[in-house]
Amino acid sequence: MLDTDQSAVMGDRRPPVSRARAICQQVYRPGAQKFVVLVIVFNSAILGLETSAAIVGRIGGLLSFLDKACLFIFCVELLMKMACEKLSFFRSAWNLFDFIIVGVALIPGSGQISVLRSLRILRALRLITKLPRLKIIVESIIRALPSIGWISVLLLIIFYIFAVLVTTLFGQSFPEWFGSLPASMFSLFQILTLDSWSMGLVRPVMAAFPYSFVIFISFILLSSFIVLNVFIGVIVTSIGEVASEKIEPTLKIELRELSELKEQLARIEEKLSAKDPPDSAAKP
Amino acid sequence: MLDTDQSAVMGDRRPPVSRARAICQQVYRPGAQKFVVLVIVFNSAILGLETSAAIVGRIGGLLSFLDKACLFIFCVELLMKMACEKLSFFRSAWNLFDFIIVGVALIPGSGQISVLRSLRILRALRLITKLPRLKIIVESIIRALPSIGWISVLLLIIFYIFAVLVTTLFGQSFPEWFGSLPASMFSLFQILTLDSWSMGLVRPVMAAFPYSFVIFISFILLSSFIVLNVFIGVIVTSIGEVASEKIEPTLKIELRELSELKEQLARIEEKLSAKDPPDSAAKP
Amino acid sequence: MLDTDQSAVMGDRRPPVSRARAICQQVYRPGAQKFVVLVIVFNSAILGLETSAAIVGRIGGLLSFLDKACLFIFCVELLMKMACEKLSFFRSAWNLFDFIIVGVALIPGSGQISVLRSLRILRALRLITKLPRLKIIVESIIRALPSIGWISVLLLIIFYIFAVLVTTLFGQSFPEWFGSLPASMFSLFQILTLDSWSMGLVRPVMAAFPYSFVIFISFILLSSFIVLNVFIGVIVTSIGEVASEKIEPTLKIELRELSELKEQLARIEEKLSAKDPPDSAAKP
Amino acid sequence: MLDTDQSAVMGDRRPPVSRARAICQQVYRPGAQKFVVLVIVFNSAILGLETSAAIVGRIGGLLSFLDKACLFIFCVELLMKMACEKLSFFRSAWNLFDFIIVGVALIPGSGQISVLRSLRILRALRLITKLPRLKIIVESIIRALPSIGWISVLLLIIFYIFAVLVTTLFGQSFPEWFGSLPASMFSLFQILTLDSWSMGLVRPVMAAFPYSFVIFISFILLSSFIVLNVFIGVIVTSIGEVASEKIEPTLKIELRELSELKEQLARIEEKLSAKDPPDSAAKP
Repeated sequence: MLDTDQSAVMGDRRPPVSRARAICQQVYRPGAQKFVVLVIVFNSAILGLETSAAIVGRIGGLLSFLDKACLFIFCVELLMKMACEKLSFFRSAWNLFDFIIVGVALIPGSGQISVLRSLRILRALRLITKLPRLKIIVESIIRALPSIGWISVLLLIIFYIFAVLVTTLFGQSFPEWFGSLPASMFSLFQILTLDSWSMGLVRPVMAAFPYSFVIFISFILLSSFIVLNVFIGVIVTSIGEVASEKIEPTLKIELRELSELKEQLARIEEKLSAKDPPDSAAKP
Repeated sequence: MLDTDQSAVMGDRRPPVSRARAICQQVYRPGAQKFVVLVIVFNSAILGLETSAAIVGRIGGLLSFLDKACLFIFCVELLMKMACEKLSFFRSAWNLFDFIIVGVALIPGSGQISVLRSLRILRALRLITKLPRLKIIVESIIRALPSIGWISVLLLIIFYIFAVLVTTLFGQSFPEWFGSLPASMFSLFQILTLDSWSMGLVRPVMAAFPYSFVIFISFILLSSFIVLNVFIGVIVTSIGEVASEKIEPTLKIELRELSELKEQLARIEEKLSAKDPPDSAAKP
Repeated sequence: MLDTDQSAVMGDRRPPVSRARAICQQVYRPGAQKFVVLVIVFNSAILGLETSAAIVGRIGGLLSFLDKACLFIFCVELLMKMACEKLSFFRSAWNLFDFIIVGVALIPGSGQISVLRSLRILRALRLITKLPRLKIIVESIIRALPSIGWISVLLLIIFYIFAVLVTTLFGQSFPEWFGSLPASMFSLFQILTLDSWSMGLVRPVMAAFPYSFVIFISFILLSSFIVLNVFIGVIVTSIGEVASEKIEPTLKIELRELSELKEQLARIEEKLSAKDPPDSAAKP
Repeated sequence: MLDTDQSAVMGDRRPPVSRARAICQQVYRPGAQKFVVLVIVFNSAILGLETSAAIVGRIGGLLSFLDKACLFIFCVELLMKMACEKLSFFRSAWNLFDFIIVGVALIPGSGQISVLRSLRILRALRLITKLPRLKIIVESIIRALPSIGWISVLLLIIFYIFAVLVTTLFGQSFPEWFGSLPASMFSLFQILTLDSWSMGLVRPVMAAFPYSFVIFISFILLSSFIVLNVFIGVIVTSIGEVASEKIEPTLKIELRELSELKEQLARIEEKLSAKDPPDSAAKP
């Protein structure tokens, strides 16, 4: 990047294609990137203001115009980047992420569908792409995900089993909570988060099925123990990394030093043996 | 397993008993095991579909037939394994687990009792037996259990004491919550999970017994401190294992190297002494 | 203990006082202690049965008699111990604990007062004194308390400040929740445990005082951060102990070995210097 | 401080300005500081008593007088400190903290405004400045804050995005919960703490917007994973510090010892080479 920057700053005795490219590379300059960060924050603020009916009533047209201006700037930025990097642009997951978030606003008709319209606020996520510290944190969180992958599979199996169980047993009596698999899964998720599980769900069910507490309490114990193991997995991985960074390098140096000492000693021993008369070996 | 597989693939000039056994050993092949995994997933999906009254109304017969087909496949699989391993089959806890889960469906009359019928979904747990990664996780969780064994005994004693206490004191006034030992234990478990403990349970009790908060708050503090210690036990054990794996082997190598250095030096010292004239020892 | 046991088993040619003492020492025998454990469990079960009005109606007299029999056994046990250890009996915190728990039942009139009567179940705590593994856990938990001592003081200060604040500001409008300092403290404790804090307490208060959320949310953030630090303190202490036990001894051995190597080398160097002719020192 | 104390204790043959200063320095004496601690506790107790209308009705005048007396003592203490340290007084954050907390009570009219009046209880926080152990804990907590700084920014971005999203989508149907950005943020904070999120908020919303659970459940998973990472950050930092303190110094000593051994060996080898005849090098 530094390299392309420098070439962009230098003189202009190049063919027009290369000159167009040099213009595009301006987008990588720190100043341009800072400007884009400001536009993202500004656009997020505008979308925040648009949630207030009173403000939209007064300056709705202006807000809408400014939002479109921000979108235009994002499009120009992405097009300039794509012009520079061509297809390799799409190799970076972060670029793809930017492309989809900005692109969704350009789908014809997306202006009408309120859900798609409301997704415009996802553009605020582009701040993560732009602020390196946030990027590092998000990347480290994503890197930690595989370590909890299989344990999530286990949690899903437990969820599915209990969902089928409670739908079969309590579905007819409590259709609102356990009437279908998705409804049961939502209720189980609520129980997992321990929100009103007893007063709200289990006590009413127990009034009809006195022994139902066996199922719910075993679900709570089982699932919270698994979730605990998810947490422990993440904690242990993080601590292991810190230990590796802090202690292992020193231990490696020690090992190298020790083997050097050994070689030195071997050389000394050899020298001593070389000086000894051949019969001296029989002495000890 | 590799060994038995190879012998199964080879020619067939063996007596019929041994040939029957060779057929049975086919069940250990990766292909056969993958097929069983698919059948487990398929069976779980069918049991999921059976929770919907609408779907059962339309294709209930088909689902019931497919479920029986899956059960048949499981039985055949287990019988083949038992034929191969004979009594040693029951030595593995996982095999026993499979056997009970599949066997429960074959109890005559279990088709009628809705609770037993609904337990069919436990077959989905067989996925754990089949997927090695899940098996490792579950085994490591089970291995961690003893480290929380005695602290659970402590928690149970605390639970029992408080249950007797609140049943004696508040049982008559609040029969629904504290009317009997099991009811009190359930309410205490609810308080332990902090679900609606104040608005739902303790504030009404405090309206009748103003000083009852002493009992409930000491229960919350005591039990959550013990539960915290359960968590810490698991975390510390896991971290200790990681530390042992990462750092201790290096330290052991260092110790071995150091003692080798010592021996080398002892040899050198001996040689030097041997070369010295006997009177030289008096010099220093 | 082993010693006293043996002397108790031996012959009886001793003066009567010493013989009475030998009888008392029988209480320390493993068999006697196991019997007391059984009596504790039995007594706890009886007190559990006494919570059921139906059972008391049928065999209440028997239960009451058995409870008194258990109490009698505990008294005999403690008296025998006191006879052996005399005043040093009261030096152990565990003995004192036993003494108070058993003694409270002997206070005249305590049979009438229902609260004191219900405290009989605390005898189940004597299991902790009797089962060494539980004793170790409880002692390690108690040892961990000082590490959270000062941070609890901090938590108490925060509690007190917020309690005064909310009593002053919201006490008149919501007398049930914030009418007095104790009421406010209870409500704040409820908020700390996050039970119905929003729906139950803060939303109603916010309806009257729109900006009250500032106080409550800063309380939640502050107190949960402090509680988090309590947890971290306990975790870090535990892990530090494990690290000390596992890694530090090896490191100490390494340091000792290294200093031994140094001495060996110093000896070798000295011998070499001794053999060198005096002028050879000038060579290098 | 010790130094200034000693000079304050010594004789008085100094010009009047320096004598006035010596009087001011009395405030640093342990006795004076203990007295201020007592006054803080006493003042906190008075402000606690003032929350009770009954007590204020009886001895309100006395309490008000004592409160003013405590304030006077605090002012004198701070003025004495400022006289000693002059402008450098304001360099310490703790001094500034004391100054603001005491100073706020002196703003004319602050006696009338009930909110400002109720902030007097913040003086109890001065205990932290006075008790060194509490100061250490608070400072260590504050030091841990930067490690969670950027992850809090991430949490804020997520909060803002979801707040805009739910305000746009559900604001009109549920004005009380999601009618404006601040209302939505409060509701999201409630959901983050898992208080009545399902029964209280999400189930009613789902009755109107069946697919709204997608937004809420992804918010719960996302935000709790980020909060988990905040916790892990603090834990890992604390453990890393402990490891550094306990193990790294020993490892450093080992490294130094090893390099000393190496030098010793190099000297020995050199001596041996010096004694060898020049042709002996060709032997091995």
